[in-house]
Amino acid sequence: MELEQTFTQALEYGRQYISGGQVATYIPELAKADPNWLAVCAVTTDLQSYAYGNAGQKFTLQSIAKVISLILALESVGEDVVFSKVGMEPTGDPFNSIVKLEKVSTHTPYNPMINAGAISVATNIPGATLEQRFDNFLQFTRKICGNEDISLSFETYLSEKRTGDRNRALAYMMKSGGVLTGSVEEHLDLYFMICSVLATCRDIAFLGAVLANNGIHPQTGEQLVSPRHLKIVRSLMVTCGMYDASGYFATMVGLPSKSGVGGGIVSVVPNVMGIGVFGPALDERGNSIGGVKILEYLSEQLNLSMF
Amino acid sequence: MELEQTFTQALEYGRQYISGGQVATYIPELAKADPNWLAVCAVTTDLQSYAYGNAGQKFTLQSIAKVISLILALESVGEDVVFSKVGMEPTGDPFNSIVKLEKVSTHTPYNPMINAGAISVATNIPGATLEQRFDNFLQFTRKICGNEDISLSFETYLSEKRTGDRNRALAYMMKSGGVLTGSVEEHLDLYFMICSVLATCRDIAFLGAVLANNGIHPQTGEQLVSPRHLKIVRSLMVTCGMYDASGYFATMVGLPSKSGVGGGIVSVVPNVMGIGVFGPALDERGNSIGGVKILEYLSEQLNLSMF
Amino acid sequence: MELEQTFTQALEYGRQYISGGQVATYIPELAKADPNWLAVCAVTTDLQSYAYGNAGQKFTLQSIAKVISLILALESVGEDVVFSKVGMEPTGDPFNSIVKLEKVSTHTPYNPMINAGAISVATNIPGATLEQRFDNFLQFTRKICGNEDISLSFETYLSEKRTGDRNRALAYMMKSGGVLTGSVEEHLDLYFMICSVLATCRDIAFLGAVLANNGIHPQTGEQLVSPRHLKIVRSLMVTCGMYDASGYFATMVGLPSKSGVGGGIVSVVPNVMGIGVFGPALDERGNSIGGVKILEYLSEQLNLSMF
Amino acid sequence: MELEQTFTQALEYGRQYISGGQVATYIPELAKADPNWLAVCAVTTDLQSYAYGNAGQKFTLQSIAKVISLILALESVGEDVVFSKVGMEPTGDPFNSIVKLEKVSTHTPYNPMINAGAISVATNIPGATLEQRFDNFLQFTRKICGNEDISLSFETYLSEKRTGDRNRALAYMMKSGGVLTGSVEEHLDLYFMICSVLATCRDIAFLGAVLANNGIHPQTGEQLVSPRHLKIVRSLMVTCGMYDASGYFATMVGLPSKSGVGGGIVSVVPNVMGIGVFGPALDERGNSIGGVKILEYLSEQLNLSMF
Repeated sequence: MELEQTFTQALEYGRQYISGGQVATYIPELAKADPNWLAVCAVTTDLQSYAYGNAGQKFTLQSIAKVISLILALESVGEDVVFSKVGMEPTGDPFNSIVKLEKVSTHTPYNPMINAGAISVATNIPGATLEQRFDNFLQFTRKICGNEDISLSFETYLSEKRTGDRNRALAYMMKSGGVLTGSVEEHLDLYFMICSVLATCRDIAFLGAVLANNGIHPQTGEQLVSPRHLKIVRSLMVTCGMYDASGYFATMVGLPSKSGVGGGIVSVVPNVMGIGVFGPALDERGNSIGGVKILEYLSEQLNLSMF
Repeated sequence: MELEQTFTQALEYGRQYISGGQVATYIPELAKADPNWLAVCAVTTDLQSYAYGNAGQKFTLQSIAKVISLILALESVGEDVVFSKVGMEPTGDPFNSIVKLEKVSTHTPYNPMINAGAISVATNIPGATLEQRFDNFLQFTRKICGNEDISLSFETYLSEKRTGDRNRALAYMMKSGGVLTGSVEEHLDLYFMICSVLATCRDIAFLGAVLANNGIHPQTGEQLVSPRHLKIVRSLMVTCGMYDASGYFATMVGLPSKSGVGGGIVSVVPNVMGIGVFGPALDERGNSIGGVKILEYLSEQLNLSMF
Repeated sequence: MELEQTFTQALEYGRQYISGGQVATYIPELAKADPNWLAVCAVTTDLQSYAYGNAGQKFTLQSIAKVISLILALESVGEDVVFSKVGMEPTGDPFNSIVKLEKVSTHTPYNPMINAGAISVATNIPGATLEQRFDNFLQFTRKICGNEDISLSFETYLSEKRTGDRNRALAYMMKSGGVLTGSVEEHLDLYFMICSVLATCRDIAFLGAVLANNGIHPQTGEQLVSPRHLKIVRSLMVTCGMYDASGYFATMVGLPSKSGVGGGIVSVVPNVMGIGVFGPALDERGNSIGGVKILEYLSEQLNLSMF
Repeated sequence: MELEQTFTQALEYGRQYISGGQVATYIPELAKADPNWLAVCAVTTDLQSYAYGNAGQKFTLQSIAKVISLILALESVGEDVVFSKVGMEPTGDPFNSIVKLEKVSTHTPYNPMINAGAISVATNIPGATLEQRFDNFLQFTRKICGNEDISLSFETYLSEKRTGDRNRALAYMMKSGGVLTGSVEEHLDLYFMICSVLATCRDIAFLGAVLANNGIHPQTGEQLVSPRHLKIVRSLMVTCGMYDASGYFATMVGLPSKSGVGGGIVSVVPNVMGIGVFGPALDERGNSIGGVKILEYLSEQLNLSMF
């Protein structure tokens, strides 16, 4: 098949850039990753599936969880509630910057794709207890990724929790302005947990396929994301999804995408397919260096850009 | 026709919001505008044309010129040269902010849609003299807007020049880092001139139609924007085109767009049409308050969003 | 006596400005203060004592504690240890700003007189437990203020602790850079406690007298502050002691001083006396509005300025 | 004499640190300086004079001119006029930073010792033409430095003018907020000229002596600085005079001082003497590295600190 050949070539193209990147080291679990791992998967809206490279290797979702969490929050409490405590604008700053929080008297974060914004968004995940809230997230993740075996990396969660002081600073800043209420540590626990969910490249490709398929699960036909929420999620992935390289990525790839420091990137080709790439060697902005190149190659060869 | 009715309704919908906005007053020429003016035009890729409201009213392009200037620069000197002196990332700051220029040791502006970035981009417009450079811009504008009568508002140019000290600050900051070379005042003269070109709602709709038609002039068939440059321009319009409301606008309208404080907004519906709206009453971010609402209505009713 | 008359006149002069200020309201205990309270006290290096107005009214030290804490830290662990985790430079920003913490990769606060800096400094107060550390602070405060009855306002401490999220943000930011180690909440507990110590105008005048008397307790002759530490403390009081009005205050009063949002200000007239003023109505920078005017009057009439 | 020995030792002490610094290179005239030059001079209020090292070597005043310009402005138009267009607060930022100008809607600079503030202050120097205004500055400089031969380095002025784009950015930012009116280039010309005045170590020691002698010329008895203006100048020298090392310098030296990138530092020992040091090798903050050490030595040995 021609498509298969393109994926294979994309993988080889991306592999050439791996040596220019570095594995995240702020927690031991991420530092254990092999920088040479590289994978690309795709799931089409008619359920064709493609997988190349280390497609079975699990990694933690990290910031990719921000997309799932945003969807779940929107579907649970609606747009007005979610965006009363987070904005929709890119920041131009690193994902963990606290500067713009001080600029607004309410300390409301600019968008759901930076850490502060994701912490705010996650407060909307329903549940009476932390366990229930995380379980709701996990069940939703399993459903939207089409994999009942997705689970938490407890070690990563504990590491995130242990080293999460910058996120605590963001959270307490927001609490001081009223964006967060209740226990900050519990909000952070949930945030650290959702960041620590293990998935494979294929899982996030499935997530991308749901977002490509107008929010409808391609197997069950269930509407997991409403049309309005889909617009919000896909547009925020374009404007803010690739950290402070989002603008460049939009010109080079032109697909709604979200990366995580675990090395994964999910991309959405509307009406066609979801793509998942994985490569833990990161560029200086925190995006998978090989993964970005794979997506550039695919976008170019298959003419996928929205722009 | 159904489409005609939708445009008419969009105009009436937008009109309800006019009273919440204010005409720009930093120069007398803008302050003279009637806040009640409102118009919407469209030009399809197969050259159907629609015009409603004050469609014949001229206004200055202001920041909409940033799009034309970017295209001309890219077509003239290529992507590498243009982006050696400007980035591609949104800032999260107001369009005239100088703060992020200081953050980078070279004082390179973040993107072509903020003032600093547009001043940098315009230096690439070719010509031996200021007059030739502006003439090149004007000829290109006439061509891409499909109107040979487009001309400069000399009064606006003089006003911009007289009150342009904030832009001078941006320009000298860039010069101190090597982003600009040569005469700052001449660079600014060109920038002030291109901002002061008079156009109508129909003219910018035609510009949008070219960007919708894969960069090809729908009448002459001339390729005015190469495919790669088209991706750059349309993606930057999405991530940075509506000042620091770009993220919100992407969720609500979902079309590559660029606004100007003269009250115009150009929007691109890929493969379908260009839309121009005009309404000099601005919201607090500097976007036409009625114009944004017209575009929201059209996007919703005609299902135009890319997302 | 002429001096007595000057103090009386200073009090009346300051009283005229009270109506322009407002009592701090971020915690109930501060909001309970009567904005009309006003007092001025002085203790000379030869132990003459002066007291006018509401000199017996207790108030919480708030930021004045930063001076005592800095002295105790310096005397306990030395200059090198203290200033390995805090700088000596004014910030130009409000006392609770977090922006400059992000600018430095280690997240080291700029000086001991802003909240972040004071939290860092307080970590040097010795003691095996929180109770011992606070007790060390309290005993030192009693000694340097010459009043064995000085005690904690437990209600204020609890309020500070309950509403201290901005300070938590500062603290976690510092912890993420390694400035703080161990339990943030315990560090904050100590900080909230030392801010919540109750004193009178006379008590802080005595503190000023020690700093005026070359660091020597004027009654016991004990050297409480070494000569080198005295220079550090008095110079930081001048450059950073009056929040972001320190520069103006230096020209108008010209004395090493430190204010607190409880309404107190301690001023040092080297070799002559310590002055304490108290008035809970604050100006917009957080300094006692009447207190500042009293000090301006005294400095002018008695020619006290160092400059 | 003992004092002579102390000066000699101070010079030798300072010399040890020279190799850790670097000569300013942003203009050729500064780059020509020999990094090994080092000098210390003093002029007492009773006109005793001391000079050691390269005391006859001329250098440009650079930022030391900010002090003279501030005095002349204050004496010419008064405190209220001067401080309607500049503040009194330290910034915590580098001397050429533009960030804080944007924070204030009027773009008023924070203090007279940073570039923006000094440009604002210099607009108050009286004169019908640029030539007259500079001549007024020059005459006043000759008088307050006690040297009729002080003159302009025209080469330095031209270099400053040619490379002064960062200062132009500051100036146009201020003009856009109304802090400056009229010709920015003329304001900058004056500013560049006053920075380019040549002086020796002995000249600035004399300046220091006037400020030490309550503003009275020690030879002629003329009151060059009024008592109120003296407080303003000496306090601003303490809080803001040594760039963003002012706080540290206050603890280590404790004297009102002002440095320039030409390598000079003027220090004031109230009622005793003025000290001038000179050494073009600068530390990373822009202060003479040997000069600072000389002053630290003198302050320590002679117990000069105000604190």
